[in-house]
Amino acid sequence: MTATAEQIREFLAADFSQADMELISAGNQASKIRTVITDRHLRPGGTVSGPTMMAAADFALYVAILAEIGIVPLALTTSLNTNFLRRPAPNCNIVAECKLLKLGRTLAMGEVSLYSEGHPEVVAHATGTYSIPPEQK
Amino acid sequence: MTATAEQIREFLAADFSQADMELISAGNQASKIRTVITDRHLRPGGTVSGPTMMAAADFALYVAILAEIGIVPLALTTSLNTNFLRRPAPNCNIVAECKLLKLGRTLAMGEVSLYSEGHPEVVAHATGTYSIPPEQK
Amino acid sequence: MTATAEQIREFLAADFSQADMELISAGNQASKIRTVITDRHLRPGGTVSGPTMMAAADFALYVAILAEIGIVPLALTTSLNTNFLRRPAPNCNIVAECKLLKLGRTLAMGEVSLYSEGHPEVVAHATGTYSIPPEQK
Amino acid sequence: MTATAEQIREFLAADFSQADMELISAGNQASKIRTVITDRHLRPGGTVSGPTMMAAADFALYVAILAEIGIVPLALTTSLNTNFLRRPAPNCNIVAECKLLKLGRTLAMGEVSLYSEGHPEVVAHATGTYSIPPEQK
Repeated sequence: MTATAEQIREFLAADFSQADMELISAGNQASKIRTVITDRHLRPGGTVSGPTMMAAADFALYVAILAEIGIVPLALTTSLNTNFLRRPAPNCNIVAECKLLKLGRTLAMGEVSLYSEGHPEVVAHATGTYSIPPEQK
Repeated sequence: MTATAEQIREFLAADFSQADMELISAGNQASKIRTVITDRHLRPGGTVSGPTMMAAADFALYVAILAEIGIVPLALTTSLNTNFLRRPAPNCNIVAECKLLKLGRTLAMGEVSLYSEGHPEVVAHATGTYSIPPEQK
Repeated sequence: MTATAEQIREFLAADFSQADMELISAGNQASKIRTVITDRHLRPGGTVSGPTMMAAADFALYVAILAEIGIVPLALTTSLNTNFLRRPAPNCNIVAECKLLKLGRTLAMGEVSLYSEGHPEVVAHATGTYSIPPEQK
Repeated sequence: MTATAEQIREFLAADFSQADMELISAGNQASKIRTVITDRHLRPGGTVSGPTMMAAADFALYVAILAEIGIVPLALTTSLNTNFLRRPAPNCNIVAECKLLKLGRTLAMGEVSLYSEGHPEVVAHATGTYSIPPEQK
């Protein structure tokens, strides 16, 4: 059972308060999302904060998994490993692109590259795992 | 050059908007901080979200490092690896305890255990590295 | 069902060819093992290689888990994250000390600190997860 | 200053005892290497061991970095994070493909996908960082 990008958007709008995240695309074991950066995402000096980028990576993984297994609210992050590589561009939204590397019965794993929107260089890279509740297989 | 818990609190109050984080203690290559949980830290189902716990771990590391090297705003996270181990207790603040494992000239590394306040079991565990700007050695 | 250090030693001697690993202690959600360093563990310059330390961390986790769940050959590493912190002392065995942070039905997670034997400073630190085959719960 | 695949092969043949590793290609911020699997790489049950795959990932990163910065023996791993995704095919060499995501003055970071040779699915995935000695910039 899969879910379309539109179905995921409706679920997220109803159940999540992450008004700063926009789903750009989802499907084919991949996803692309945008974090709309405002002052609350910045650390002193005006750089996008690490937690903002980790939240984006986590969300991109979640969306990529929902697109494959359907709307499963209880899929839970079990690990997220992030490397911060470059200073993000100032005043620039963050785009996260996720590719799933494994979609098993109980565990999914993927990698996420994060960019300052419109810039070619990876600003951070994450790998993460989600546990999938057994009843949802 | 070190900084006291009180000096770090003043710096954070002036420069950071992380009104949800409280510094409990800092020093001796360690720190303890609290995230005051409100609705915006929860995901559907009422569980404290992963990004909330990653932000707490990142902040605990930052505070432990500032206590050793002084107020260095430009210390930056270079990696954060988090394992989510148990569902946090509902309606319960998160406490993060950090121990530094290395404090080098240009890189600091530590581990962080996260708890639901008042509960004995680790709900998440993180390891992270910070780069320290060379002029601050 | 648990296993004693002696039972684990017998199992390892029979089924594993890791003649370079010695079990020092196991039990109470912890373990301590030694890697006896020879030329094949060194990289150019005489430093103990990274893979040698990762193998030690993986083995310490495995032993700590076997001590809790009994002799389960098919427990498998699902992740291992290692930070290399200091140059190990030359001509010195490596000791790995593991503490389990979670022992669930299907997943165990622990952290490992690695030392040059007889030296106080952590030379590397790892966190890892193992999957436990369901029939062995 | 860069190094060709042939120059790296000569350096490795002279200074490294990793007779089980073959350099397939290196350059363009990438590398491809093979681990020739023999009995000593297997764990009970005949599966390629985790440490064998971590050593392959570490080596692929090292080779990709040497191809960019020249023969720098003292480039050192500072972190390696590995996720084990599928059981490798039995009696099958392991191929590791590395792409660098950052090549800075003092730190390089890359990701590595590991395959059973001739099989399309990723069996393990790693991300790692190396420190580059400052005199070699």
